[in-house]
Amino acid sequence: MGPHLVDIEQIRDAAALIRPYAVRTPLLASPWPGLWLKPENLQPIGAFKIRGAVTAISRLDPAVRARGVLAHSSGNHAQAVAYTARAFGIDAHIVIPDNAPARKVQATSDLGATVELVPVEQRFSRPAELARETGKAMIPPFDHPDVISGQGTVGLEIAFDMPEVAVILVPVSGGGLISGIAAAVTALLPNAKVIGVEPELAGDAAESFRAGRRIPWTPAQTARTMADGLRTFTVGELPWAHISTQVHDIITVTEDEIADATRRLILQARLVAEPSGAVAAAAYLHHRDQLPAGRTVAVVSGGNIDPAVLRALLADA
Amino acid sequence: MGPHLVDIEQIRDAAALIRPYAVRTPLLASPWPGLWLKPENLQPIGAFKIRGAVTAISRLDPAVRARGVLAHSSGNHAQAVAYTARAFGIDAHIVIPDNAPARKVQATSDLGATVELVPVEQRFSRPAELARETGKAMIPPFDHPDVISGQGTVGLEIAFDMPEVAVILVPVSGGGLISGIAAAVTALLPNAKVIGVEPELAGDAAESFRAGRRIPWTPAQTARTMADGLRTFTVGELPWAHISTQVHDIITVTEDEIADATRRLILQARLVAEPSGAVAAAAYLHHRDQLPAGRTVAVVSGGNIDPAVLRALLADA
Repeated sequence: MGPHLVDIEQIRDAAALIRPYAVRTPLLASPWPGLWLKPENLQPIGAFKIRGAVTAISRLDPAVRARGVLAHSSGNHAQAVAYTARAFGIDAHIVIPDNAPARKVQATSDLGATVELVPVEQRFSRPAELARETGKAMIPPFDHPDVISGQGTVGLEIAFDMPEVAVILVPVSGGGLISGIAAAVTALLPNAKVIGVEPELAGDAAESFRAGRRIPWTPAQTARTMADGLRTFTVGELPWAHISTQVHDIITVTEDEIADATRRLILQARLVAEPSGAVAAAAYLHHRDQLPAGRTVAVVSGGNIDPAVLRALLADA
Repeated sequence: MGPHLVDIEQIRDAAALIRPYAVRTPLLASPWPGLWLKPENLQPIGAFKIRGAVTAISRLDPAVRARGVLAHSSGNHAQAVAYTARAFGIDAHIVIPDNAPARKVQATSDLGATVELVPVEQRFSRPAELARETGKAMIPPFDHPDVISGQGTVGLEIAFDMPEVAVILVPVSGGGLISGIAAAVTALLPNAKVIGVEPELAGDAAESFRAGRRIPWTPAQTARTMADGLRTFTVGELPWAHISTQVHDIITVTEDEIADATRRLILQARLVAEPSGAVAAAAYLHHRDQLPAGRTVAVVSGGNIDPAVLRALLADA
């Protein structure tokens, strides 16, 4: 027996919790016929991660929450936890591997978090130690029902705005976002198909999906993609329970396709996406033959692109 | 006695008319404390102009509308009328001066409109002639109550989303957008202040506002600004009636400030704005001393930036 799946009531509850903190993003008609965009790059901190972080922190026992929260991440999850902790007036202690880009460390400490840099091999052990020592609650990046129900509000909003949607394309890394969306869509729009998208160079979830069991990749393998938000080398246990039962397919896109989609989102759709946030649009632009017919939504999951990468992408255009 | 001002009921009616066609844009917390952004660059065709075009075309007598519509413009209004006409299944005939950039002509004809290029001195006479010959209705760019009430839905949405707003910054060209917003805000939030923003190099409305009467500039003067959507050399008659009674102030920003704001909207707020769409944010970033205190909203009016301009702006960063 697998873990208990997140249900639609948990997602509806999350929607009420996030309302004061997250943007209720609209669906945007894209410049490409048949495709709509869900612009989560417009959230505070520039990514959907705010939804899960607010939900998880809101659901902590107030006495526990008052002690502050912990997270380990070098990316958008770190910023989401830091932002939310500041909004709740509590401390955030974020453990970041010391090989993370300085720009991301800065963005997290700018949000008022205490940032602790650790050797990369301590990135899991040090937060566990801190949790024991401080009594602070750990906010996990994806493998938790509170986080998944928060991310599921993206699916709730898509179902409300476009009940006739046929296909929803979602970037996959640890699997929290696609799990929440699949849970919402399975409950509300059973005929719609949720399809995951990964970089070919970090295609562990696609391989796992084909095999019917989780097949982790190595960090060295997943580090090859420019989509730095999608380098997690395996989906979580609870996400896998959702993915293996509620997701229609997982497909992959190449680095060139990711670069092209990022560029076209900026120049044609007027949205600044990070490469990780552009993979779903890349699937629509380059792999229509692998997708079911009908109205399609691509989730633009984040917009925290390095300015140097942005400049290089546009210079190539 | 001046013309009859647009009232809140006309704006509420417009809100119902535009719902199937325009995006209900959210208010976004900006990276700059105290400032929120109204991202009209996310509309279909990339600008608020869709609101006025849909309202005006919806209110035509159906028998008149069936004959098709006319407009003269080289910018976002042309694309808004073309887009709306296509959505209604009617013809759009757009007269564009033959010195307009080819890119804008292409964008308008890509939307299915008939584009007629005319020598610049015929840009008003030719559409009038066409109206007589064809019976097609002219959709004016700003000086009309239907257009102003459509643009006013921006103000209605801001008032709903942030009733505690103190200052609303709005780009000014022909004055349709600021008139509609001022009409909505005067009715709903009488303590909030609507402030217009113009490029210093196209500052006819600011000069007019100081003088208490409309002072047109020459097209050669207003052509100097990079904000190509704000080169109209005088506000319209009905807009002037709103501006002179419902607007708190009009201030100007320099070309460097416009470039800086456009760049920061892209790199920090993840919004692709055109220079004309960035002037309100520029006012907040560079002229806080001229603004009243309190929560401020800047309308990002459009995002149709020339890719070459975008590249050059980012290269300077």
